[in-house]
Amino acid sequence: MTQLINDTFLRALRREPTEYTPIWLMRQAGRYLPEYNATRKRAGSFLQLCKNAELACEVTLQPLERFPLDAAILFSDILTVPDAMGLGLYFAEGEGPKFERPVRDEAAVARLAVPDPNVELRYVMNAVSTIRGALGGRVPLIGFSGSPWTLACYMVEGGGSDDFRQIKTMLYRRPDLLHRILEVNARAVTDYLNAQIDAGAQAVMIFDSWGGVLADGAFQRFSLAYVRQVVAGLKRTRTVPASAAAPAHEEQVPCIVFTKGGGLWLEQIAAAGCDAVGVDWTVDLGQARARVGDRCAIQGNLDPMALMADPAQIRAEAQKVLESFGVPQPGAGHVFNLGHGISLHTPPDNVAALVEAVHTYSREMRARGASASSL
Amino acid sequence: MTQLINDTFLRALRREPTEYTPIWLMRQAGRYLPEYNATRKRAGSFLQLCKNAELACEVTLQPLERFPLDAAILFSDILTVPDAMGLGLYFAEGEGPKFERPVRDEAAVARLAVPDPNVELRYVMNAVSTIRGALGGRVPLIGFSGSPWTLACYMVEGGGSDDFRQIKTMLYRRPDLLHRILEVNARAVTDYLNAQIDAGAQAVMIFDSWGGVLADGAFQRFSLAYVRQVVAGLKRTRTVPASAAAPAHEEQVPCIVFTKGGGLWLEQIAAAGCDAVGVDWTVDLGQARARVGDRCAIQGNLDPMALMADPAQIRAEAQKVLESFGVPQPGAGHVFNLGHGISLHTPPDNVAALVEAVHTYSREMRARGASASSL
Repeated sequence: MTQLINDTFLRALRREPTEYTPIWLMRQAGRYLPEYNATRKRAGSFLQLCKNAELACEVTLQPLERFPLDAAILFSDILTVPDAMGLGLYFAEGEGPKFERPVRDEAAVARLAVPDPNVELRYVMNAVSTIRGALGGRVPLIGFSGSPWTLACYMVEGGGSDDFRQIKTMLYRRPDLLHRILEVNARAVTDYLNAQIDAGAQAVMIFDSWGGVLADGAFQRFSLAYVRQVVAGLKRTRTVPASAAAPAHEEQVPCIVFTKGGGLWLEQIAAAGCDAVGVDWTVDLGQARARVGDRCAIQGNLDPMALMADPAQIRAEAQKVLESFGVPQPGAGHVFNLGHGISLHTPPDNVAALVEAVHTYSREMRARGASASSL
Repeated sequence: MTQLINDTFLRALRREPTEYTPIWLMRQAGRYLPEYNATRKRAGSFLQLCKNAELACEVTLQPLERFPLDAAILFSDILTVPDAMGLGLYFAEGEGPKFERPVRDEAAVARLAVPDPNVELRYVMNAVSTIRGALGGRVPLIGFSGSPWTLACYMVEGGGSDDFRQIKTMLYRRPDLLHRILEVNARAVTDYLNAQIDAGAQAVMIFDSWGGVLADGAFQRFSLAYVRQVVAGLKRTRTVPASAAAPAHEEQVPCIVFTKGGGLWLEQIAAAGCDAVGVDWTVDLGQARARVGDRCAIQGNLDPMALMADPAQIRAEAQKVLESFGVPQPGAGHVFNLGHGISLHTPPDNVAALVEAVHTYSREMRARGASASSL
């Protein structure tokens, strides 16, 4: 594998000094880009796009052609794992993802088994290695998975939900059944992420997109406990074989945990063993940094809708986020991101303005910080 | 006006001692009750039900006939105020509320005016005085309004929203326009709640249902600042004329502010001048109590979906909520509630189990607390 040309993102996750604040955007390869829509049309459907390594690679790289982003993220769906469990993932036009066979009773839970990521999810591993090769070391590649709880939400609800009535009914009435689902999911997610690491992912992210709908207490038992189990089972280092550029060495593979709506539980998430915590826009980054201390880096947290403003306003909002974190001292790390996926209504030029603003302003902050400390 | 027979709810809001923890439920008069559905059918539509004082009174009292709840809440819609501004509220079957004339440009903002609650919203005041009379002092009557920000969400979006793209685009691009809307809304909500107090409401609640979708910083400027303005303008005491039961006296009218998803901003909300802060189920009540101190009472916070469990499990969940708050010492107050409106799928018998559990267990906790402190 080639050496990384831009490893700013990985250094920020390791809380090492960086010349500027690295940035990538959740869902950066997506429908706001006309070239993405063209590739998706060629693929035939969203799922066919996910299952075709060449096309998944193509869309993964598209945002990097436009913007000097500091990381790439595997293009895939959050629901590949339950699909591999045989639940029958499909997308009804204009609606979200659905499962043909939701998991709602004892028999369905008993049938669940951990898929072999190198068999049932081979297409994802093919995409990871294809993308890694195509990147040629430009920036690191992030692999990802939904959290055990977030996957269970879709598996039990059979799709998206406003009130999570099915899974919460199971949680309050049959916690034993839900724990069995989560146990299977935790093992499946661990295997899945480890296979992505083996295939070339240089960092991994766990999306606990629905952790924030749980009650305090239930979050810790039904989501965080299983995230912790996944993190504990991850291959956090990988041996890189000797090459012309470097002798054989160990490479760290950092792990990011993002719980949407999890701001109240930040200390507990930061203690789950991960390298970085993702936070949404409801969180003040300065307070988050104070609460997390030097246990973790922090990733976030611009409101995606700020990208609907004009470039001057976007620059001002980006500066607010950077200033709320402050200049990362040794032991702290900040990765700029949105607090949630980018909206399909975002004008691509506004993304260019954001990336430019984050790079430029974070360099200026460091220069000011350095001159202030040399007084 | 008759003397209150059960004033436990008002005493808890004033942080005075109570024999047990009072309970009422957001949306307690609603579709989970067959008798509500029958009355609504007779009314013809939801809006006709809101606009008919006799029928609104009938449904307000229905949950009190079934359960020994400690407060009644005016049956009305959250969007009566923007409807009175002439935006044309309607309900498309199976969808949420909509406005015929959303407020999206300078001209629409300029047209907004504060309605006279005793003219355009006379039907609400009629409902308040009718309900107050029908209650005959059994329990206090709560009046309510949406917060200026929450009303603005519907006014600008033209209905419900997943991403709040229209109003957030205005927030980031044209904050001046949004501030003008919020300024009108704040005056309208103040007048509306004061008119409800004049008509007989014994406490008022501000529902900031969408405060939690705002970024940190934006929440303070676009939601909390206007809630503070409303609270500052409320009539917090009312002169009760002399009657056979009591001489003329002043009566306090407490005010509750509930921001869904506002757990991170609890101290700031508690400092807005209100008597109580409502919290959703993501908040640990013990921590909330420690953060709020003795500035405010706390209302909440059972996950409404816990009511899908069986009665024994509901009792256990109710006990957890009561224990997380602990026994209210003088200067603290707890009103039991859900963390959001009750689900239409809730079996009414489960509500009976919850109310019974809260009353019984909170009395036991006080008895244990008293015997422990007399050792």
